[in-house]
Amino acid sequence: MTASLDAPLDTAPTSADAPVPPVDGAESVEAVARRAKVASRALATATRATKDAALHALADALVANADRIVAANADDLARGRESGLSAGLLDRLALTPDRIDGIAAALRELAGLPDPVGEVVRGSTLPNGLRLRQLRVPMGVVGMIYEARPNVTVDAAGLALKSGNAVILRGGSAAASSNAVIVGVLADALETVGLPGALVQSIDAWGRAGAVELMHLRGLVDVLVPRGGADLIQTVVRESTVPVIETGVGNCHLFVDESADLGDAIAIVLNAKTQRVGVCNALETLLVHDAVADEFLPIALAELADAGVTIHGDARTLELAGDEVATVPATDEDWATEYLSLDLAVRVVDDLDEALDHIRTWSSGHTEAIVTRDLASSERFVAEVDAAAVMVNASTRFTDGGQLGLGAEIGISTQKLHARGPMGLAELTTTKWVVQGDGHVRP
Amino acid sequence: MTASLDAPLDTAPTSADAPVPPVDGAESVEAVARRAKVASRALATATRATKDAALHALADALVANADRIVAANADDLARGRESGLSAGLLDRLALTPDRIDGIAAALRELAGLPDPVGEVVRGSTLPNGLRLRQLRVPMGVVGMIYEARPNVTVDAAGLALKSGNAVILRGGSAAASSNAVIVGVLADALETVGLPGALVQSIDAWGRAGAVELMHLRGLVDVLVPRGGADLIQTVVRESTVPVIETGVGNCHLFVDESADLGDAIAIVLNAKTQRVGVCNALETLLVHDAVADEFLPIALAELADAGVTIHGDARTLELAGDEVATVPATDEDWATEYLSLDLAVRVVDDLDEALDHIRTWSSGHTEAIVTRDLASSERFVAEVDAAAVMVNASTRFTDGGQLGLGAEIGISTQKLHARGPMGLAELTTTKWVVQGDGHVRP
Repeated sequence: MTASLDAPLDTAPTSADAPVPPVDGAESVEAVARRAKVASRALATATRATKDAALHALADALVANADRIVAANADDLARGRESGLSAGLLDRLALTPDRIDGIAAALRELAGLPDPVGEVVRGSTLPNGLRLRQLRVPMGVVGMIYEARPNVTVDAAGLALKSGNAVILRGGSAAASSNAVIVGVLADALETVGLPGALVQSIDAWGRAGAVELMHLRGLVDVLVPRGGADLIQTVVRESTVPVIETGVGNCHLFVDESADLGDAIAIVLNAKTQRVGVCNALETLLVHDAVADEFLPIALAELADAGVTIHGDARTLELAGDEVATVPATDEDWATEYLSLDLAVRVVDDLDEALDHIRTWSSGHTEAIVTRDLASSERFVAEVDAAAVMVNASTRFTDGGQLGLGAEIGISTQKLHARGPMGLAELTTTKWVVQGDGHVRP
Repeated sequence: MTASLDAPLDTAPTSADAPVPPVDGAESVEAVARRAKVASRALATATRATKDAALHALADALVANADRIVAANADDLARGRESGLSAGLLDRLALTPDRIDGIAAALRELAGLPDPVGEVVRGSTLPNGLRLRQLRVPMGVVGMIYEARPNVTVDAAGLALKSGNAVILRGGSAAASSNAVIVGVLADALETVGLPGALVQSIDAWGRAGAVELMHLRGLVDVLVPRGGADLIQTVVRESTVPVIETGVGNCHLFVDESADLGDAIAIVLNAKTQRVGVCNALETLLVHDAVADEFLPIALAELADAGVTIHGDARTLELAGDEVATVPATDEDWATEYLSLDLAVRVVDDLDEALDHIRTWSSGHTEAIVTRDLASSERFVAEVDAAAVMVNASTRFTDGGQLGLGAEIGISTQKLHARGPMGLAELTTTKWVVQGDGHVRP
């Protein structure tokens, strides 16, 4: 998973925040989108060789301009410190020459991935002789709305380029200076390899009003991908008439079944909760079958406490927690919360049915896991849980494009339309039916 | 294609129009949706045998209750006549025992189609031993908003059932009496085979306010499919926070290239324009290469005139039309119009570039066709036209789930997300990643 999924919500930027005014006061975000649409045509029929050469050119240009980028980033960091951004946010905002090298390396890796465009998804010859092919083609123009993460600017540009799309970026006021320089560097680099610079454009200069305008450019913008906190995503979902792919909240559960291998269960719980806490595929609620609670919980809770985890437990859990375990009584708010911190909600349930009920009530549809040795329990859990990913005897942390072998990832979709789970390059494409005849008419 | 895609917009119904008030004044559309969600769970894990038996039970029940349905339909027709519905709309609204037999037969055909649920879309074993499968699973709850077509009530219920989804139907005031009886018959029939009646529910009784409430039940309703005129679809797109699949307008073009077999071109133009006029895949604009206009147009226009077609032509076309051809000078409005009638816009273009330009400007992204014998022209047209379907030497009328071998069809999507072109059963499903390990944790 790209780390940026876990960014807390940027404070709402206003037009007044925008550090770079539109170059031409009369120009609109719509004009930006029209340029993107025209530019996207050049890319739609570009070969993989052209696109990969462009990715390498972008990477080289970022490294060559690292000093300028770091200088602009220093301005953003100074403004961020003044406005009281948290240490975590400042760290996410910060760019160093090393980080820029890493971002450039990711672009070069993208060049190594297969091109999704042109894949024949389905094909056949009909009884009447018509030859059908359903081809994978670029969407056209992709909009990204995200927050205070200059690395996402490059990631999104690279993924869009490789999948044959133009991209319009709204990166938020906190990273506006960094993003302005980065987008300029990327656009110039595209021109050097003969592609239009308008394939990568920022609308940060239009502030929040520009983002809202972008959300209404249905027909010009083919899809909008919001990345960030729940508030940002909900705003885009509510406001946008452009189709949105929601990248969502992960309130992930793990159920330790009566038949679980308790050693495996402890290892998976620790990994899912503590391997990285601020990410959407981290564990947030542990459900334990009543029959193994007495044996499992005292050990599991002690190990979690050693790792610094605070337990938000139901009454039974609190009884089983040793004195060394930091505990808080759990309320419904705990069952609903994606902590993104060293906190874990824990509940003892009567059986698989109660676990499924709990998950049905509180799941965000991201990742749900079971630890079990019982085939029937495993199959019921897989069949009945309604989520993008279901794990059997594995950590929730595997819901990730890289881990699942999809290559690069633009986000993790928790909605059901178009893409569900990790979204790779193929999810930034659509399809086109091509039907070839010899003068065929319909009888 | 199901004919209902071409229905003109129902006159906006108001709550006052609703002939059947909600059974319980306190109940909300949200309560209906919650029942649907619960009911959908029973269906999500049902076997194909169960679903197919239910489809046969629905068909039998419709035939057995044909008298009641026809009687309710007579009320709708009487109200329709009073309110001045056109003859075309009244015909679409009308149900007879024969038509009910036809609708029932379509349900039985649906039972013969493969079950999309459970298909393994992708799968692999990762280097670390994790076993991955991406399974096709039902969406959950599908909402349908359509107009004055009681046959769509049954089609939508059947497609939803076969694909494992509950359906909430908003069929409009004009067909409200028919739909109320039909939904009652379908729900009762579901109960006889042990499935919840709440799998098929109508919200017609809540009127227009109910439709708006449905559009905001994100989380409870998984997808909304509007079917009807452009105004209806645009209203849903604008208003809905539930993800929408747009079934759209077909402003379809055909370009007769310099190298075309002119005999084929005439046959295809006639078929595409006149085989059925009120449908979204009918031809609306003919573009003719300048080099063949003198030879092609006089013959083609005469044959179109014989078939009763009025030509809306550019200056060159009007010059080439014989006296027997009914002509009107074309304006930009003609290039933009989906006539759905015996009218055709005709323009002579300088070359393929001008044809592509015209299509780029006016296309609704449904179906575009070229008649050519030149490989390079064919390949450029296929690559550069941005539409759900591109036809080479074949009629636009082939953009249809049945014609393309997809089986049943719920509509034709002109958007790029999730489904593009004819939408069959698979497009009413989503996927779920299932990951099986043996205590796997992320390093």
